Amino acid sequence: MPTPDRIRAELRSLLEPARVLDDPASLARARRDTWVVSVWRSLQDGPIPNPACVVRPTSTAEVSAVLAWASRERVAIVPFGAGSGVCGAVLAPEHSVVVDLGLMRALKHIDEVALLATVEPGLLGSEFEDLLNKAGYSMGHFPQSIALSSVGGWVATRAAGQYSTKYGNIEDMLVAFEAVLPNGEVVRTRAVPRAAAGQDIRHLFLGAEGTTGILTEVTYEIHPLAPSTEKVAIAFPSMHDGLEGLRAIMRAGWRPAVLRLYDEIEAGRSFAGAAKDGESLLLVLTEGPPELTKVEIDGAVRIAAGAHGRAVGPEPVDSWLHHRNKVPGFEYFLNQGMVVDTIEVAATWDRIDALYSGVLAGMRSVPGLIVASGHSSHSYGTGTNIYFTFAGRPEQPNGIEDLYFRIWNAAMEATLAAGGTISHHHGIGRVRREWLEKELGSAYPLLTTVRHALDPLGIMNPGALLPDPQGSRA
Amino acid sequence: MPTPDRIRAELRSLLEPARVLDDPASLARARRDTWVVSVWRSLQDGPIPNPACVVRPTSTAEVSAVLAWASRERVAIVPFGAGSGVCGAVLAPEHSVVVDLGLMRALKHIDEVALLATVEPGLLGSEFEDLLNKAGYSMGHFPQSIALSSVGGWVATRAAGQYSTKYGNIEDMLVAFEAVLPNGEVVRTRAVPRAAAGQDIRHLFLGAEGTTGILTEVTYEIHPLAPSTEKVAIAFPSMHDGLEGLRAIMRAGWRPAVLRLYDEIEAGRSFAGAAKDGESLLLVLTEGPPELTKVEIDGAVRIAAGAHGRAVGPEPVDSWLHHRNKVPGFEYFLNQGMVVDTIEVAATWDRIDALYSGVLAGMRSVPGLIVASGHSSHSYGTGTNIYFTFAGRPEQPNGIEDLYFRIWNAAMEATLAAGGTISHHHGIGRVRREWLEKELGSAYPLLTTVRHALDPLGIMNPGALLPDPQGSRA
Repeated sequence: MPTPDRIRAELRSLLEPARVLDDPASLARARRDTWVVSVWRSLQDGPIPNPACVVRPTSTAEVSAVLAWASRERVAIVPFGAGSGVCGAVLAPEHSVVVDLGLMRALKHIDEVALLATVEPGLLGSEFEDLLNKAGYSMGHFPQSIALSSVGGWVATRAAGQYSTKYGNIEDMLVAFEAVLPNGEVVRTRAVPRAAAGQDIRHLFLGAEGTTGILTEVTYEIHPLAPSTEKVAIAFPSMHDGLEGLRAIMRAGWRPAVLRLYDEIEAGRSFAGAAKDGESLLLVLTEGPPELTKVEIDGAVRIAAGAHGRAVGPEPVDSWLHHRNKVPGFEYFLNQGMVVDTIEVAATWDRIDALYSGVLAGMRSVPGLIVASGHSSHSYGTGTNIYFTFAGRPEQPNGIEDLYFRIWNAAMEATLAAGGTISHHHGIGRVRREWLEKELGSAYPLLTTVRHALDPLGIMNPGALLPDPQGSRA
Repeated sequence: MPTPDRIRAELRSLLEPARVLDDPASLARARRDTWVVSVWRSLQDGPIPNPACVVRPTSTAEVSAVLAWASRERVAIVPFGAGSGVCGAVLAPEHSVVVDLGLMRALKHIDEVALLATVEPGLLGSEFEDLLNKAGYSMGHFPQSIALSSVGGWVATRAAGQYSTKYGNIEDMLVAFEAVLPNGEVVRTRAVPRAAAGQDIRHLFLGAEGTTGILTEVTYEIHPLAPSTEKVAIAFPSMHDGLEGLRAIMRAGWRPAVLRLYDEIEAGRSFAGAAKDGESLLLVLTEGPPELTKVEIDGAVRIAAGAHGRAVGPEPVDSWLHHRNKVPGFEYFLNQGMVVDTIEVAATWDRIDALYSGVLAGMRSVPGLIVASGHSSHSYGTGTNIYFTFAGRPEQPNGIEDLYFRIWNAAMEATLAAGGTISHHHGIGRVRREWLEKELGSAYPLLTTVRHALDPLGIMNPGALLPDPQGSRA
């Protein structure tokens, strides 16, 4: 393996030298994502492994040149979108090269007939959505991270947005892509509405967390801005009743854009005026033709009433729309000696009650946990997700990591015991890696097979998603 | 490679001997699917390659034993569902073993809360749907072949059904599966509503046409029987206007279960009372809560009116529902010296007009073509498919194959020239294999990579989808 000095020198012969960075600020910015453990470690005094450099390509050809070189030299490559991931998928090993896609941010084309938008991977989600809005369109994809995450990162992590019940998740939106394979070869697919031409190649990159190559262009389905929106909040006596109401709405065949069900803790925290003590609160938002949104909101209210739901007006939905993407950073809590994180999991309807109560019980059994709560934010015909939030405070400040991993361990084991999936839309990264084999069971080796087939040298984001194939890097 | 005698003897030590068949009728039944070229060749006097035998396993363990043995002995395996494929994906090479899944046909479980049905792969689609109906459910998947095709074959070919605009295609319905890998290992996935846990393993089997293993169980999403249905047919002055009307309905955000647009030839043939000479005809059927179906059908009619559409009542939809799965077999035409086939392709909305007219012009330029027509049967936000039907008659009866391939060649080249995909839902098999590299372009090698990674010995259905990795078998 070449020395860091040689790595930088060779990359400066491939790219404009000013876009091969190794100053401390550049390394600190791009060597990790927003996993709270990485944030915590960056606040400590201890030594932090640093990549050899951060490169900032401006074209597919440059990404290709960097990867072809890395394959020849067996140098580890860490793709970096916007660094908003919360699972540690970006944590650059010593002597690796971070490929920061932040300069590849062009919206290349909007096709107003085919309803497609083609964009480079480094554009931020909110910038992309703003550009679409100005043209009269929306992607319909609203992850809470939209102002912090990149349009390419969404594919790598299998993102889901707040309007997913109507518009689907990222795998339903990605129509075509361009990517550079680990050996530098460029792969482009064509935009077609649907095909039966062998396996769907998009799924080699969706959820791969950068282990199969680097996306250099994505083409997403877009929608004309919806002409009508209706909103209502519905209070339920309990989370159990709320989940039954949610299931009944989906079972009836309604697909409102937004269905968010908060448990009594979160409803009390954010919507105290609307939900009484102990009640859960469901937010419903429908989008589309006015004739549809009207009957859909009425349908949801009527069905919810059969599950002891009580409509309480649109105000809680408006309040959520206003505040929905504001979250305090992890540092705020760490500086007070607390660790806060979120864990999103999912299960089929027959298991969701047990998953919700089992995960909460598991987390609450960990000494040092202060509070744990959850809401459902993505529903399907077959089930829904629960997005848990927890806060803990160790007895000693240096007990942060130990407490954190104990709580995660409790949540993951309880999820698997309830028959749920350990990750709904944040991905695996490093925080969930040790449970992935239990998640996939007999299918786990297929993931390793695919990874090895596409990246036989094991240079792509080693340590994310799967154990580092070379075993030596974090 | 072992001799056919040894193959049969060894398999009779693994399976009950009566389920290892080599009588001429059994071989003739399972050695091929319903590709018209295979039908034609079976009507001729010439020699036909025969597999060594047909085995009929009754359990996953038996499938596993057969595949483990085949891997050790390097014997080619051809999975056989119900033989309804029309692209030649089943065409057993000499000395191969056909694994006929027709005895694995149990509906194992219906989960009425999670809305899941788990079934063995060999059950026929219509039998499965009938069992669901009796329990108050439907899969919402209605390929025209439903009475002839198997529930496992749907996954292998990436099937689409007539109600796909509402319920999606097979990739949207498959929740979990069990499969046997080429080496005999058994892979099972868990039923979860959605996950972000690495690449979606289902897509290694969806569309693989039996090249990555044999499905032994599938779990599909189901739906309560819809409480309401509304129907209307809408006549348009031309196919161009009809396609614009179709696009406008999808663009507005409506998703009726059925949207079928027939060109003037097919409208005149099947719905002469409803469509005037030269008109195209759109069938619309909505399903769901009665409040939804009412506004959706009204919405479709109103939007269509803006594209010169004229509602002509529900009768054509009723007529289609009555006749929709009745098609004369290929033999009927072959016996009259004619060859008839269908070719389904798709394109984005900006290209669909050019695709429709380009493919028809291409086919009509082939001497011997009698008639070619098309309809759209599966629409998406980004585009739609066209399902072409052609009939041709060569000057000499022995010119059938030559004429057939000339017409297919014209259709495939015109589809690619228009920027469409060469296959919407019938798959690749052998009839489209030579165009797959043009279809996928730089992504084509990834398909080969995946195939080789999952089946390094190249024993699984050699010659289907991709060229036989050993190069020697058809």
